[in-house]
Amino acid sequence: MAIEFPRVPHPDDQVREQAVQRHRQLTKPEGSLGRLEELGSWLAAAQGACPPQPLSRPRVVVFAGDHGVAQHGVSAYPSEVTGQMVANFVAGGAAVNALAAVAGAGVRVVDIAVDAETPDPVGKYRIRRASGSIDREDAITQEQAEAAIEAGRAIADEEIDGGADLLIAGDMGIGNTTPAAALIGSITRTEPVVVVGRGTGIDDAGWSRKTAAIRDAMHRAKAAQGDPVRLLATIGGADFAALAGFLAQASVRRTPVLLDGVVVGAAALVAEELAPGARRWWLAGHRSVEPAHRFVLERLDLTPLLEFDMRLGEGSGALAALPLLHASIAVLRDMATFTDAGVSSS
Amino acid sequence: MAIEFPRVPHPDDQVREQAVQRHRQLTKPEGSLGRLEELGSWLAAAQGACPPQPLSRPRVVVFAGDHGVAQHGVSAYPSEVTGQMVANFVAGGAAVNALAAVAGAGVRVVDIAVDAETPDPVGKYRIRRASGSIDREDAITQEQAEAAIEAGRAIADEEIDGGADLLIAGDMGIGNTTPAAALIGSITRTEPVVVVGRGTGIDDAGWSRKTAAIRDAMHRAKAAQGDPVRLLATIGGADFAALAGFLAQASVRRTPVLLDGVVVGAAALVAEELAPGARRWWLAGHRSVEPAHRFVLERLDLTPLLEFDMRLGEGSGALAALPLLHASIAVLRDMATFTDAGVSSS
Repeated sequence: MAIEFPRVPHPDDQVREQAVQRHRQLTKPEGSLGRLEELGSWLAAAQGACPPQPLSRPRVVVFAGDHGVAQHGVSAYPSEVTGQMVANFVAGGAAVNALAAVAGAGVRVVDIAVDAETPDPVGKYRIRRASGSIDREDAITQEQAEAAIEAGRAIADEEIDGGADLLIAGDMGIGNTTPAAALIGSITRTEPVVVVGRGTGIDDAGWSRKTAAIRDAMHRAKAAQGDPVRLLATIGGADFAALAGFLAQASVRRTPVLLDGVVVGAAALVAEELAPGARRWWLAGHRSVEPAHRFVLERLDLTPLLEFDMRLGEGSGALAALPLLHASIAVLRDMATFTDAGVSSS
Repeated sequence: MAIEFPRVPHPDDQVREQAVQRHRQLTKPEGSLGRLEELGSWLAAAQGACPPQPLSRPRVVVFAGDHGVAQHGVSAYPSEVTGQMVANFVAGGAAVNALAAVAGAGVRVVDIAVDAETPDPVGKYRIRRASGSIDREDAITQEQAEAAIEAGRAIADEEIDGGADLLIAGDMGIGNTTPAAALIGSITRTEPVVVVGRGTGIDDAGWSRKTAAIRDAMHRAKAAQGDPVRLLATIGGADFAALAGFLAQASVRRTPVLLDGVVVGAAALVAEELAPGARRWWLAGHRSVEPAHRFVLERLDLTPLLEFDMRLGEGSGALAALPLLHASIAVLRDMATFTDAGVSSS
């Protein structure tokens, strides 16, 4: 089985231009709503409709997976937390649940490689129990990488067929900022010491161990340069592969995506290699505290909506930004034009 | 009549500390929600309750007023637009209406000094028809400045007595970024050429006229340094005076305020002089494109929630940011603790 994605379509530039023109007719000085106008025009182009429809079914999918490297002192938390947090998501007690409720989004959690039992149907797409310790072994096999990409693709299809009109990918996995940094470092050819961050909050000794693990992983990844599936197998993991498949498929299906932080960002870099042009369908929700995130944003040429010093994952940064999309749509849909309102234009 | 505000109370630092501690018990790494956590703790302190209550009645009050200086080529729009936009607010067709609906806020518009008929009860607090041309004459009399401050104070009282749990002040008035820049320049002792901006979008010739008007106004204002009421009378206007009274009274009444852009910011600087410490009850919704706004934020020591290249006024920037406050409250109210969820902490 070889992974192949169809050519990624373009958002509709003619509709984008209609939205730009419509903004000019609304009762406000031209361009005075700044990025809200850009967002509204972008969403119009993505939907192929001006004004765009309200987002009636935004969906967050949290991809959960454990990482063997977490056994080697790179995280402030033990691996058992991944499975515990999956239960917390299902029970509705996590940040993603609280923020999704405010932003009007639905939440789904999928166990791709959690090293614990998870309740049905969370484990429907499980590839294995934890990915390998990327500093010393491949995260997963080539076959598992392909299966995980297909799983992510299937999840995107399920959501879109179920009516999702905006997708957010989230992550949960103790240790997952280590493979994220290694993937970002490898793809953007950035030194380990530059991409390593504190994750959930490691101390200085942990930071040194993490840097060494990323360095060793990036060394192991040299042979995989330019081969995104092999890279995922070598230093990513099943959750990263599923995320990449999910993000690529969203773009193939013309569905806008609001990206989250560094883990989703690492998967997005791979998705852009799997399906070039996928990034045309993505917005950046926020800029994470994690240093590697900035290389993702630069590479994908995305300007984050929020800079809120967040570093949680779960899709939390994207969810905090989601109301801005609702606002941008309301501007195009609900504002009067100069003519309608009898207001003199400049 | 001399204007006097009671001593401004402090938000409750003990409750803030309770919120900080509560954040540590919630199922997320410590501090990982960044500014969302700060916001939640700030709102807890303002409400004196941890967790804070959801904002059930946020209210935007748009202060409308014309300015004589608009007759002298400092704006891209004619003065008649102010009255037309008031009608648009009442009819629900403006940006403030669209954005307030998304953010769950109510909208009220008050005519403080519009140079046109406005429908009842919008004109209940009207002080006069347009303020003077501040480059050559006082904006309003000392008595009018005092009456306008009292009007703003009464409006804040009405809103708070009516159950408002968060206030946003907005502005509408062709030409109003000229007095805003003059006020900001005078209070922060910044050169006219540094504080002048493009407002709704003037051309280069208009920019030169505007700079000259601000320079002349700031020269006229030298005698009013240190006397906020006199400063409002000399180079502000009735709408600025009402805004300042509104903002000061909100703080006296322990009601949190989300500030908007440069016009509200100019009034906020004056309000802080009228009622020192008023700024403890304020957050900055966004950073406006208008160059003078940054001096407001520096002086008030506020970090804006959004940087969205907005420059509309009406409260639009604050409304775009309001969902972030809802999100911060949901985190403190709705997330499970490590103990409740059976999740291991670090």
